[in-house]
Amino acid sequence: MSSPLPPKLGIIGGMGPHAGLLLADRVLASTRATTDQDHLSFVVISYSDRTPDRTAWLEDPSRPDPAPAILDAALTLAAAGVHHAGIACNTAHVPAIHTRVLAELEMRAPGLEMLHLVRETAAFASEAAPGARRIGILSTLGSYRAGLYATAIEAAGLTPVLPTEHTKHEVNRSIFDRGFGLKAFTGRVSAQALDLLVHATAELRAAGAEAVVLGCTELSLVHAEGLDVGLPAIDSTTALARALVRRAAPDRLLPLAS
Amino acid sequence: MSSPLPPKLGIIGGMGPHAGLLLADRVLASTRATTDQDHLSFVVISYSDRTPDRTAWLEDPSRPDPAPAILDAALTLAAAGVHHAGIACNTAHVPAIHTRVLAELEMRAPGLEMLHLVRETAAFASEAAPGARRIGILSTLGSYRAGLYATAIEAAGLTPVLPTEHTKHEVNRSIFDRGFGLKAFTGRVSAQALDLLVHATAELRAAGAEAVVLGCTELSLVHAEGLDVGLPAIDSTTALARALVRRAAPDRLLPLAS
Repeated sequence: MSSPLPPKLGIIGGMGPHAGLLLADRVLASTRATTDQDHLSFVVISYSDRTPDRTAWLEDPSRPDPAPAILDAALTLAAAGVHHAGIACNTAHVPAIHTRVLAELEMRAPGLEMLHLVRETAAFASEAAPGARRIGILSTLGSYRAGLYATAIEAAGLTPVLPTEHTKHEVNRSIFDRGFGLKAFTGRVSAQALDLLVHATAELRAAGAEAVVLGCTELSLVHAEGLDVGLPAIDSTTALARALVRRAAPDRLLPLAS
Repeated sequence: MSSPLPPKLGIIGGMGPHAGLLLADRVLASTRATTDQDHLSFVVISYSDRTPDRTAWLEDPSRPDPAPAILDAALTLAAAGVHHAGIACNTAHVPAIHTRVLAELEMRAPGLEMLHLVRETAAFASEAAPGARRIGILSTLGSYRAGLYATAIEAAGLTPVLPTEHTKHEVNRSIFDRGFGLKAFTGRVSAQALDLLVHATAELRAAGAEAVVLGCTELSLVHAEGLDVGLPAIDSTTALARALVRRAAPDRLLPLAS
């Protein structure tokens, strides 16, 4: 206990709550450790019931705004002494939400570094799917409409491949449908949700995609269950987890499991 | 978003870190929900690297004391506005540790209710293993030596069944061994750890046990993987998760899965 401890990590979860826990679990899985004390300290804030849906607000800004709850969670992390944090929700990175959160944080908690899930995922593409140039994108409608991943993938020097308008809605249903969607997840991915995603990936592959971004943290739950969507996956949750460990304790980052 | 929200839940994890996340996951699995917003808000504090091992301190109080880090985590929860919290570590409930944490909390954060993992587990026995009177106990050496579960099971009007001294050490090894123990867990329970536990349970069954308390949160990881230890399990992590949901929002508590 005498050498200086690495800084604490923070996770803004709750969007949905399983996705936040999965990010924390991926932090553990990315850390070289054989005792409790080898693991990095972290705090998870999961304010599900007080964080309005991101896509719903982006589609209709007269609905409740998710930014204040995300900011509140970030300030709680800063007060707990967290130095590096990430938000386990891709749609929360759409600039209409994210830039307002960051602007407030810069004033009120300048010591808290927020890693950017979407940029980390775009940077992770070359590691997760070496050689792939044309990258398919699976995300919520809120993220599709904002061009969230299309912009980031292009900035990384790769070519984004997007589904048709109809299929974007089907991917969104696989996430949000109250009967079978991933948000209604109770320990299993439903056959209907998986079916919609496999069809979407087939379309992306036919359009030339060589890999696919799981650009919604709920989609990472599919990957976590070992389900195959039909293309090499660039998992946004894994990308952020590895970026967090690298930031706090680069010597403890495990090599990527093949 | 207009009806009053249930109070926030808190989890003191990190002992080990998987066990804290598993408790949070069980809270989700115990909650009736089909959208993010149906889930209760919670905060997980996982201070693994700054929380000394509980059993090591109980065995040798000249080693670093875990109580200050547990108290620090609890105060962080109180500052975040948490009302009901639990500690995802059975050994941390040994009075030599727990009563000092509670005494400080009573003075410094009187609004934070700490649920008692061990008492909740003893109360859960009749629900998890109906009709069982003789209850076997699997725990760390620190918990065995303090009589932690023996006392609680007796207080619940049931009869504790303890392993031999040799087997207590074997159960402890299944948790702590740096090669194959559950603390070195990287996503899989090792065959050696499972083997030690199955042997211990066989001994308890031969001594008349009709069910077994998984009285270390690392042992809940075995149960989470669907592994059978050979007797009906009274899982301390499930007991605490259900107690937390019941405390914050009793109408959302799902029936126990059979």
